[in-house]
Amino acid sequence: MAKSKGFIPDWTEEAPPAGSYRSIFKWGAPNGFKHPSNAWYEMMKREFHLIDADFFKKQEEGHAPVVMNRPTALSAGQIEQLKAFVGPQNVALDDYSRVKFAYGKTTEEMLELRQGIVREVADVVVHPRDKHDVRKIVEYCNAERIPVTVFSAGSSVNFGCRPAKGGVSLVVSTHMNKLLEVSELNQTARVQPGMFGPAYEEALNRSPELFNTRHSYTCGHFPQSFEYSTVGGWVVTLGSGQASTYYGDAYDIVFSQEYVTPVGTFKTLDFPATATGPKVNDIMKGSEGTFGILVEVTMKIFRYMPENRARFSFMYPTWEAAVNASREIMQSEFGKPAIFRISDQEETDRGLKLYGMPGFVGTFLALRGFLPMQRCLCLGNVEGDKDYAKLVKRKLTRIAKKYGAISLGWYAPKKWEKTRYTEPYMREDLGDYGILIDTLEAGVTWDNLHRLHEGVRAYIKSRPDTMCMTHASHFYPQGTNLYFIFIAYMRDADEYRAFQSGIFDQIQKFGGSLSHHHGVGRMIGPWMENHLGKEQMALLRTLKKHFDPNNIMNPGGQLGLD
Amino acid sequence: MAKSKGFIPDWTEEAPPAGSYRSIFKWGAPNGFKHPSNAWYEMMKREFHLIDADFFKKQEEGHAPVVMNRPTALSAGQIEQLKAFVGPQNVALDDYSRVKFAYGKTTEEMLELRQGIVREVADVVVHPRDKHDVRKIVEYCNAERIPVTVFSAGSSVNFGCRPAKGGVSLVVSTHMNKLLEVSELNQTARVQPGMFGPAYEEALNRSPELFNTRHSYTCGHFPQSFEYSTVGGWVVTLGSGQASTYYGDAYDIVFSQEYVTPVGTFKTLDFPATATGPKVNDIMKGSEGTFGILVEVTMKIFRYMPENRARFSFMYPTWEAAVNASREIMQSEFGKPAIFRISDQEETDRGLKLYGMPGFVGTFLALRGFLPMQRCLCLGNVEGDKDYAKLVKRKLTRIAKKYGAISLGWYAPKKWEKTRYTEPYMREDLGDYGILIDTLEAGVTWDNLHRLHEGVRAYIKSRPDTMCMTHASHFYPQGTNLYFIFIAYMRDADEYRAFQSGIFDQIQKFGGSLSHHHGVGRMIGPWMENHLGKEQMALLRTLKKHFDPNNIMNPGGQLGLD
Repeated sequence: MAKSKGFIPDWTEEAPPAGSYRSIFKWGAPNGFKHPSNAWYEMMKREFHLIDADFFKKQEEGHAPVVMNRPTALSAGQIEQLKAFVGPQNVALDDYSRVKFAYGKTTEEMLELRQGIVREVADVVVHPRDKHDVRKIVEYCNAERIPVTVFSAGSSVNFGCRPAKGGVSLVVSTHMNKLLEVSELNQTARVQPGMFGPAYEEALNRSPELFNTRHSYTCGHFPQSFEYSTVGGWVVTLGSGQASTYYGDAYDIVFSQEYVTPVGTFKTLDFPATATGPKVNDIMKGSEGTFGILVEVTMKIFRYMPENRARFSFMYPTWEAAVNASREIMQSEFGKPAIFRISDQEETDRGLKLYGMPGFVGTFLALRGFLPMQRCLCLGNVEGDKDYAKLVKRKLTRIAKKYGAISLGWYAPKKWEKTRYTEPYMREDLGDYGILIDTLEAGVTWDNLHRLHEGVRAYIKSRPDTMCMTHASHFYPQGTNLYFIFIAYMRDADEYRAFQSGIFDQIQKFGGSLSHHHGVGRMIGPWMENHLGKEQMALLRTLKKHFDPNNIMNPGGQLGLD
Repeated sequence: MAKSKGFIPDWTEEAPPAGSYRSIFKWGAPNGFKHPSNAWYEMMKREFHLIDADFFKKQEEGHAPVVMNRPTALSAGQIEQLKAFVGPQNVALDDYSRVKFAYGKTTEEMLELRQGIVREVADVVVHPRDKHDVRKIVEYCNAERIPVTVFSAGSSVNFGCRPAKGGVSLVVSTHMNKLLEVSELNQTARVQPGMFGPAYEEALNRSPELFNTRHSYTCGHFPQSFEYSTVGGWVVTLGSGQASTYYGDAYDIVFSQEYVTPVGTFKTLDFPATATGPKVNDIMKGSEGTFGILVEVTMKIFRYMPENRARFSFMYPTWEAAVNASREIMQSEFGKPAIFRISDQEETDRGLKLYGMPGFVGTFLALRGFLPMQRCLCLGNVEGDKDYAKLVKRKLTRIAKKYGAISLGWYAPKKWEKTRYTEPYMREDLGDYGILIDTLEAGVTWDNLHRLHEGVRAYIKSRPDTMCMTHASHFYPQGTNLYFIFIAYMRDADEYRAFQSGIFDQIQKFGGSLSHHHGVGRMIGPWMENHLGKEQMALLRTLKKHFDPNNIMNPGGQLGLD
């Protein structure tokens, strides 16, 4: 691995200026940073043919204050009415609020905000205090034909909270962020949609103290965006957490939901199972704010037993061996690991170099026949009851070895866990020097995994000097997901859009799901009809029309509906 | 226990006459019988104040040939067209076919058919050869406004295959009953909807030989109707098998589906998970033939490892202890048993007497403090990987003992398994002497279980001389189901309807789901709007209208839609 030559770029260490564009596109806490390591820096220079001088000066940092000069399209009377519903302190018309609560975290948004380019925003930002406020606002906006777009945490990576038709940005995370009830008998938690991951998890962990329960609980859902995403967002976008192989995807963890829609408010049934026709509770999941607004959700919760966790990692000689072993593990009926990931050749190779694995490890592995750009890393953990966790670890280890893997112990997953939520912080540092890192992902059955992997990877690699690292991180007996990470020197938003669009084309062509857990938003909308087929897309449009006959709920391309 | 006094009623031992009403309402194989044991017989006499003389003569056996004298309402041209689609040999107009393929297995249907009372039937019975036939028929019937009601196995217990508006009975089990493909990689099976349980399971068990797979597979779905129900029926009515606690309900086992509807044919996506909006695959489940016709379904399958099965049974001192232990087992995160059942006091008491537990067992239990009409039986098995199964059994045994249970070993579940599919055969024997046995069931959360149990039970027991036995047999971390079995001396269909209607009222009143796994059919339709609420019912009606704008698919009350 290349050693530092002494020069270190001036990675930003200060919170973005208040009111600046950067404060909007920056990931996470204003004072949270994670800089590329020296190995990262050397890799970028090498891959993109850059020299230290290219890192002397940051470009388009987005430090300017947000200024739009766009008058609100709502009338004074409409604004007054909204203020009457929620109180004047919960209505904002200033430029900054209108932009902030219109933006997610896509690369495209970052590229444009750096240049002060602002796309569609709402006319007014409203922070409802509770579900009754939401109901009044939706009724009123429906009568007045004012578009309403929900904003919760803003971690969307597909323009899911972009108010494409203006109107109201409805921010549910400001006030509607409480854990309302824990039912220990039913092992469920009733929670408001705008509650952030850490607050929710902490309250569940502390439920003996807060809710007088016998046991501590966990939510079981830990996406990479955990710290800056909300429970409601997980549900309406069909998210998956890093431990989904054991706990299930957000879809599986929802017990019941309450929605406010233009045609009425309702709560789905609280039953562990029911055979009373198509399940409305499931129909609403993944509706991404286009049918109505999730105002309360009852989630399944799980016993919190961190003391039983055990980590593992393996090196497989090849990607094929890693995939075959993973499939065997998922189909062997001995239970499931919680976190479970396999990295392809390039991700493994770069990972070994980037994450401080001492050089002799690589040499040792090579001597044992685990060759660079062939070997593949697997890491994860087991959770649940202590004996169950032990059994699962023992069983999956046996299968790994059968497929030629060697065990690397707990170090890699421990290290991975430390940075599991902080990786996104690097995006701004890279972007300051014209480098972008982004991801796309797809669900896939086992029988199509290699075809999809090779097809998408070939497209990404066909662009000169473009890195592509892939892993599978959510496992099922029937298949997994493929998560493609690409890194490129690219600063032009149009070029980026064209490149990304090509990736979606490839995912479609090679039979992947257009999204495994990122949702659709407006970004993937144009592919939806072709993906689902016109009959199924027509069904989604009928559902949309049913709930929202005036097309006021998150209109303008969301889910490809309009 | 009362001993036989020598007299044994003349239980029927002959197949019903060909073409008779009885041949339609009889359960299972024409030559299949299971007669009440002596203990059963004595119990009935005692409970219903009957004497041997009341069993001297069978009444309303339904031996008469089916005769209706109802002309078909379809034109000769329409009949000819249907014949042109499927071949004349696959179109039937005779009275017997029209009645047979209109009837399910409700008590009400049995009571009426015994008297030769025939409700709505189709005008013509059509047996499509494949999905292309189905498509032609649905297109044609939609154009001609001819109602189409699907019939597969006819095990419906809620008039789900009653052609309430006449038209076509479309019988999918005659020809569309093949296992088309087993994908070992994906662990899925593509199957036609009309395949019966035993043929499906046998083909999966034999898949090394039939499909050249390495492993044998199981479908994981074993409802009491297993032998006389079909894969498609399981899916569209949201059935649950007896091992659902481990394998999941039919809802969970479906991977993808292909439907023919009046507005088009489509197949849902083949992905283990996808985040592309509301899941059409899930929307179709439970549609009970009202949206369209399921013509192919890809099911998840599971490794078949019968050698790893282990049985268990326990006696708990009380129902409350059995419930609490079951909840603890389901929430402890060590995996799940496959079959898992707990019987309430009355079911336990009658079960001990009816199923040949030697008298000393009862005495022994009572001496140990497990008193009659307090003690509750639990039985089940574990499946899956050998070590996993062992672990689950060991863990649940520990919890059972913590809640005061004593282990009764493998005898009870072994005995239960032997009769698991044959109990329904007794219905005709009982009915011959005016006694009916029927069941209703509900899903329920843990926090509402006792209220529902007591409420429904109190209603059933408020009718003089009515037995009520209850068990829970499908378990989830969030709750279970309650399965109410009632036995009464009652031969009047009107009285029966009123009594049954009262039970649904009580289930509704005490917060149970109207159906846990029997579906809705036309029977529960009238309760649906109140149960779901008008907003959710309106959604189901919108879906119906989307797929079937002319209301030809299973019209006339199914799911309470019209």
